[in-house]
Amino acid sequence: MSKKWVYVFSKEKTEGNRNDKNLLGGKGANLAEMTAIGVPVPPGFTVSTEACLNYYDAGEKITDEIKDQAKELIAFIEKNSGKKFGDVNNPLLFSVRSGARVSMPGMMDTVLNLGLNDEVVEGLATKFDARFAWDSYRRFIQMYSNVVLNMDGEVLEHKLSELKAAKKVTIDTELTADDLKELVATYKTTVKEATGELFPNEPIEQLWKAIGAVFASWNNERAMIYRQMHGYSHDWGTAVNIQSMVYGNMGDDCATGVCFTRDPSTGDNRFFGEYLVNAQGEDVVAGIRTPQPINNESKTDGNRDLPTLQEIMPKCYDELVTIYKKLENHYQDMQDIEFTIENGTLYLLQTRNGKRTAAAGIKIAVDMVSEGLCTKEEGLLKVDANELDKLLHPRLDPEAKKDIIGKGLPASPGAAYGQIVFDAATAVEWVEAGKEVLLVRMETSPEDITGMVAANGILTARGGMTSHAAVVARGMGTPCVSGCPTVLVNNKNKTVMIGGIEYKEGDAITLDGGTGEVMAGKVPTIKAEISGDFNTFMAWADETRRLKVRTNADNPEDSAAAVGFGAEGIGLCRTEHMFFDPERILAIREMIFAENLSDRESALDKLVPFQKADFLGIFKEMDGKPVNIRLLDPPLHEFLPHEKVDKENLAKALGKTLAEVEARGDSLHESNPMLGHRGCRLGVTYPEIYKMQVRAIIEAAVESANNGVNVIPEIMIPLVGLASELKTLRADAEVVIADVFKKAGKEVKYKIGTMIELPRAAITAGEIAKHADFFSFGTNDLTQTTFGLSRDDAGKFLPEYVNKGHFLVDPFVSIDQDGVGFLIEHATKYGKESNSKMHIGICGEHGGEPASVEFCHRAGLDYVSCSPFRVPIARLAAAQAVAREKINNK
Amino acid sequence: MSKKWVYVFSKEKTEGNRNDKNLLGGKGANLAEMTAIGVPVPPGFTVSTEACLNYYDAGEKITDEIKDQAKELIAFIEKNSGKKFGDVNNPLLFSVRSGARVSMPGMMDTVLNLGLNDEVVEGLATKFDARFAWDSYRRFIQMYSNVVLNMDGEVLEHKLSELKAAKKVTIDTELTADDLKELVATYKTTVKEATGELFPNEPIEQLWKAIGAVFASWNNERAMIYRQMHGYSHDWGTAVNIQSMVYGNMGDDCATGVCFTRDPSTGDNRFFGEYLVNAQGEDVVAGIRTPQPINNESKTDGNRDLPTLQEIMPKCYDELVTIYKKLENHYQDMQDIEFTIENGTLYLLQTRNGKRTAAAGIKIAVDMVSEGLCTKEEGLLKVDANELDKLLHPRLDPEAKKDIIGKGLPASPGAAYGQIVFDAATAVEWVEAGKEVLLVRMETSPEDITGMVAANGILTARGGMTSHAAVVARGMGTPCVSGCPTVLVNNKNKTVMIGGIEYKEGDAITLDGGTGEVMAGKVPTIKAEISGDFNTFMAWADETRRLKVRTNADNPEDSAAAVGFGAEGIGLCRTEHMFFDPERILAIREMIFAENLSDRESALDKLVPFQKADFLGIFKEMDGKPVNIRLLDPPLHEFLPHEKVDKENLAKALGKTLAEVEARGDSLHESNPMLGHRGCRLGVTYPEIYKMQVRAIIEAAVESANNGVNVIPEIMIPLVGLASELKTLRADAEVVIADVFKKAGKEVKYKIGTMIELPRAAITAGEIAKHADFFSFGTNDLTQTTFGLSRDDAGKFLPEYVNKGHFLVDPFVSIDQDGVGFLIEHATKYGKESNSKMHIGICGEHGGEPASVEFCHRAGLDYVSCSPFRVPIARLAAAQAVAREKINNK
Repeated sequence: MSKKWVYVFSKEKTEGNRNDKNLLGGKGANLAEMTAIGVPVPPGFTVSTEACLNYYDAGEKITDEIKDQAKELIAFIEKNSGKKFGDVNNPLLFSVRSGARVSMPGMMDTVLNLGLNDEVVEGLATKFDARFAWDSYRRFIQMYSNVVLNMDGEVLEHKLSELKAAKKVTIDTELTADDLKELVATYKTTVKEATGELFPNEPIEQLWKAIGAVFASWNNERAMIYRQMHGYSHDWGTAVNIQSMVYGNMGDDCATGVCFTRDPSTGDNRFFGEYLVNAQGEDVVAGIRTPQPINNESKTDGNRDLPTLQEIMPKCYDELVTIYKKLENHYQDMQDIEFTIENGTLYLLQTRNGKRTAAAGIKIAVDMVSEGLCTKEEGLLKVDANELDKLLHPRLDPEAKKDIIGKGLPASPGAAYGQIVFDAATAVEWVEAGKEVLLVRMETSPEDITGMVAANGILTARGGMTSHAAVVARGMGTPCVSGCPTVLVNNKNKTVMIGGIEYKEGDAITLDGGTGEVMAGKVPTIKAEISGDFNTFMAWADETRRLKVRTNADNPEDSAAAVGFGAEGIGLCRTEHMFFDPERILAIREMIFAENLSDRESALDKLVPFQKADFLGIFKEMDGKPVNIRLLDPPLHEFLPHEKVDKENLAKALGKTLAEVEARGDSLHESNPMLGHRGCRLGVTYPEIYKMQVRAIIEAAVESANNGVNVIPEIMIPLVGLASELKTLRADAEVVIADVFKKAGKEVKYKIGTMIELPRAAITAGEIAKHADFFSFGTNDLTQTTFGLSRDDAGKFLPEYVNKGHFLVDPFVSIDQDGVGFLIEHATKYGKESNSKMHIGICGEHGGEPASVEFCHRAGLDYVSCSPFRVPIARLAAAQAVAREKINNK
Repeated sequence: MSKKWVYVFSKEKTEGNRNDKNLLGGKGANLAEMTAIGVPVPPGFTVSTEACLNYYDAGEKITDEIKDQAKELIAFIEKNSGKKFGDVNNPLLFSVRSGARVSMPGMMDTVLNLGLNDEVVEGLATKFDARFAWDSYRRFIQMYSNVVLNMDGEVLEHKLSELKAAKKVTIDTELTADDLKELVATYKTTVKEATGELFPNEPIEQLWKAIGAVFASWNNERAMIYRQMHGYSHDWGTAVNIQSMVYGNMGDDCATGVCFTRDPSTGDNRFFGEYLVNAQGEDVVAGIRTPQPINNESKTDGNRDLPTLQEIMPKCYDELVTIYKKLENHYQDMQDIEFTIENGTLYLLQTRNGKRTAAAGIKIAVDMVSEGLCTKEEGLLKVDANELDKLLHPRLDPEAKKDIIGKGLPASPGAAYGQIVFDAATAVEWVEAGKEVLLVRMETSPEDITGMVAANGILTARGGMTSHAAVVARGMGTPCVSGCPTVLVNNKNKTVMIGGIEYKEGDAITLDGGTGEVMAGKVPTIKAEISGDFNTFMAWADETRRLKVRTNADNPEDSAAAVGFGAEGIGLCRTEHMFFDPERILAIREMIFAENLSDRESALDKLVPFQKADFLGIFKEMDGKPVNIRLLDPPLHEFLPHEKVDKENLAKALGKTLAEVEARGDSLHESNPMLGHRGCRLGVTYPEIYKMQVRAIIEAAVESANNGVNVIPEIMIPLVGLASELKTLRADAEVVIADVFKKAGKEVKYKIGTMIELPRAAITAGEIAKHADFFSFGTNDLTQTTFGLSRDDAGKFLPEYVNKGHFLVDPFVSIDQDGVGFLIEHATKYGKESNSKMHIGICGEHGGEPASVEFCHRAGLDYVSCSPFRVPIARLAAAQAVAREKINNK
């Protein structure tokens, strides 16, 4: 039996429905669905995505089997419509459109009027109107030449302009039928010259070529790039929709338009759209004539005086209203509809869920739920969780002029303006002097932290989405563009080349951390605002989700901000970020240079009051919520200065020679610091460091409790790979804790657990769980070790990996579910089996990424933790995971 | 019911046997076993290892329950022997010995004559002989003070010397009973002064203290270090054996001795031992009196004139012969026996499997099988596979004087002498001039390869057992000591500090790569020799094992050597080692500096003839055996020069400026090169590199086949983490292969597969297997990524990890079975499930380590691959895995 490649949609017979998007493409599935529910849609058929894959398998050829099936359906449509494809007297004409399972603007879009040729046009002219016939034919040749024959659209457009000039007319409609006939002849000559071949005159040949062109467009460059950007697979293929033409341009009882069932900018529940009388659909979008409002609600300053569809074609308008309500009800979402009126008869060409702004999305969801159009779960799924980010950060004024001088990775969203500075000290100094600055560096390191806090935004030449700059910036909600390859900083001269142009310290630039764009000068921005609908919507999310949402925060300010965003605790407080304050860093460095345990301990003793103060502030902000504090993680060399002048100052401060300072630096050097002497390995070799930190945490907890704060400290030991590491370090900590309790005459509850960030930890989670009150997946490092891929270095080849389809999405952005996910599921299963009382969370950057959050829900985690500004995203994504589960289980 | 802590062994009743080593310790289990088979052993009892753990749990106390059980058994022995513990007239005296499940020389050894005190000694003097009684007492005090009371042994020894001087005698036996009585008084005063407490006079108190001291000795420093060295767990605990004393020093019808049932040096089947008349056991070992030969076979130049036991006590000797045969039969292994004759009655104090040289081990195993004493499987298990290494490398003359100046890791076995050189060029030059050299460096890199080939041995300051130096040296069979912390190289001055002493280029040193020792000057060595027994033994191994054994070799010479050692193929041919030849490295560097594809391809084209020549040579040597060739693995920056002068030369050669050369180096710099742009990631981003290599391999294969060589090439793609990587690179390779076949008009069989060296590859092995003809576990990198542990950096803290018991054995030496092993088992299971035709091996450094080989056998791998000199070890270990399985399944 032969395979089915082609599917019909028509009043008489429809194959498929909206669930067949993978087979029929989004457009094809919708056409079938609309037809099936009785919406007037011009009949046609869809060549499936499988046929597209077959086309490639067959060496970019449409096989006879597919052609035969298509011909059968053409005959079926001919029979029901009475029209005939290629017939001179009553021709059936087609539109041909691409249609992948998701909308893809990069692909071949549309060819209209296919089936016209030198003979058919004459019949059409005789039967209807000569001007219409020749205009349709020249339009067809123009479109077909462009999208099927790949000719530069300008070439034929130029011939049209020439003709208008010769005829001394200014607008197309002033051209007569004869003018257009002359134009067709010119077009055909031009096509022959440009392509070396005659314009195809045989309708069926036109059709096969058009279908082939759609299939080929699946792999054109724009489409490839679009898929890469959106993480869509190159293996999906596209369908082709062949639909009978109806005409909005056959006279004044004809029209064509687009409409939205609600306002896509604000979400207001008003029917909204534009149309043109006596025109084809492309005219509405093309912007040559000013489109008219379909009703009073659609009027704007630009079209207020033009008659509405409601006024001039009330019957069709009323029918359109009935249909849009039917569609919104049916699809339970705001629709974006294309329609045509042919001699007073309304046809719908397309309907789809309309794109909308983040704010509109929330309003529509909230309204639809209160209107009873959908359930809360369905409402929650109407908003892309990632879009929430846009509501929380300032954004560029969309009206403003932008002089884009570079593009990097969108590392931390929001728009920011400032004067360029190249180092932390200058950043702090200038900000104190009242200036606004952007910190520009090749890459940032923990030394730069004070400058990063002071700056409005951060721009780096190197580093990916999880580089130091990106992670810290997201944590603070500071806009950041990282890994901008055309940036080259010269620290010595205090200049930076951006895209070949030199900028000096103090020059103004603007960043958009949501797009990765870098702009010259100051571009105006719009402040973030949150509506009441947002709060209603997020309240639904909160009552729906099972996962708790915590935040990654290292200081009282960020903690407070996160609580404002709905954080239910701290999932990761990185203690090392506290060490880079100038007052503290010297004590750390003293510790590093100490030659024996007692010197090390006295250096560490100096840090206790600082650490304690940090924790007191955080505990206060997080009153009643758990605070997970990670003990020292980075290798010690990260705390040493890199610049010669800093090394000299350090030598002076420590009473050592520069050579000694450099020698210690050299002795701490590591070939692969990511896999080096860090995390709990420091705790094992220098137990005094962790003991100091545990003392500070527990002393602060006791003091907070004495002040009436409800403290829930969790002590997290990083980079455990062996159960014995955790066992030993837990025992060390418990000795210190017992001592603090004894001295204070008071106890507080606490937990001790570990990060699971090494494959071995995940594999042996059952053993490790015996010594842990909790696990927290450090998915940044777990991704690095599982893939054997350094996030600092991967930037050089990751883009090519994405281009070539090896990664659909950067595994540092969204959890690699097959690999890293396997380890998370394994560790969760065996961890809980071994210790049923433990709780399990995730604190890597993935904790605020919707697909990863949904994965964490399915894997049975108890919470996710992310940077403060991503907390709402995580809350919604967690709720959507539940909603999707409920709907799927129905 | 109370737990059983104490177990008796006596003619009347014996609890336990040789299988109870974990509970009773090796010594205790053997005493029970010997007693049970009727060997005359002085009765006693064993306090179990569980009691030792209980001692620590109870806060280093022996609980009353244990004491009560011990007292019951003392009463039982008293009843059967008629002697009484602490009785003046007929005293029962005990020896007290430690005994862990394995022999541990680091622990407390033995206290004899326990139960003597001021009263009992008088009774003994009356009943037997006053001199014997007081001599026993002073010996007891001396031993007890040392091993139980932790006094410096020298102190009492010095008192003895003083007394002898005062009495004007030279040897101990010249002292009279009164002298010894005086000495006892002096001893007791001295003990009081040194310890602040009276010497315990109460026998039962002496016993508890002695048992406690044995338990405490489990955690003394020497014992801890010994366990660390041997990878034994600190959690085992030790047992204590309390045994009735018998006396070899009660007169001339008494004797004591040690014997081996076969010669431990040669393996010859001759009964062999030493004894002393009228002496205690310690006298034989102590070397104060010259021990006598037990029979003619035991005579040496040093004792030829002394009477044998056979001559002076023929009855006892005959009984000893009967017993040793019984024991050898029973234990089916060569025994190391301690015996005592008390007034003409023979007692056996201990028997154990005797230590032996590697050569002796093989001879004994071969003999015992032919004598029908054991099966081939049992014979195979009698030799420690690791010991074979010693048979294959030159070793230091054991008689030679050694001036040890440093100690590093035993990275590649064998002894080597040479003059110090610091760079590859000098090494090559000096060797060409007829000198013998040792290459001394902080660490080696691929640039040093020619020097490493030229040198007799390699010494590095940094790097572990799997550092570059170690891996390459083992591959070549060149002795190497790596990671010697007291070595500091000054390349500028061409000097090296070793343990604080400066050596210049040209100074002579000697290395022992089997021990890690570095010696001043030239120490004489002994050449390796292989006996016929070795071949017999290895033939048994080959017929027993299931695993195939391949080798890691990169050139025809090593390949030939490996075939000589029994290799059945090449499991890893690293192509990049071939690139460091001066003629080739320039082409590689041209490729790195090429600015476009076509320049890169022309640079690569220059390499094809070189690579082809390499492969032709290897294919010829490996005629009929599979050759697994890994495509380029290291990051490109490894091929760039590091020294300024080399960079300048390169700039000249490439027609570039120094700044350009340095800039390219900087652009290739990686923070974590181990996790960087390497392996198949190079193949994905620069497909032309792998295409060149595939072309060279297949062209060489076709040419070899034309020359009548049976070629079985396997192309291995490294560092795959995603199935799509392998799919793409396999497709690329197949295009090249088809082209070569077409041009040659001939095809050869080939396989394409991948290394599994990333956790993600192991996890998703089922997917990857769809595109692979084979897997090979790269356990070096798999260990690094699973643990998140860089082998280049771990050296700094790994020793402390071993010291503190976190690692029983370096995971880079023996596979971490719980973590890395899980991934190997997972990948093997899912790989074979998905593709039943695939074969699976291991090519990491673990492939030649016996415990890892056994693991590979159990995990269901098809082969292991290791450096040529370890091939025999792997063959034996693979056979032992089968033998152990068969014996366990009996």
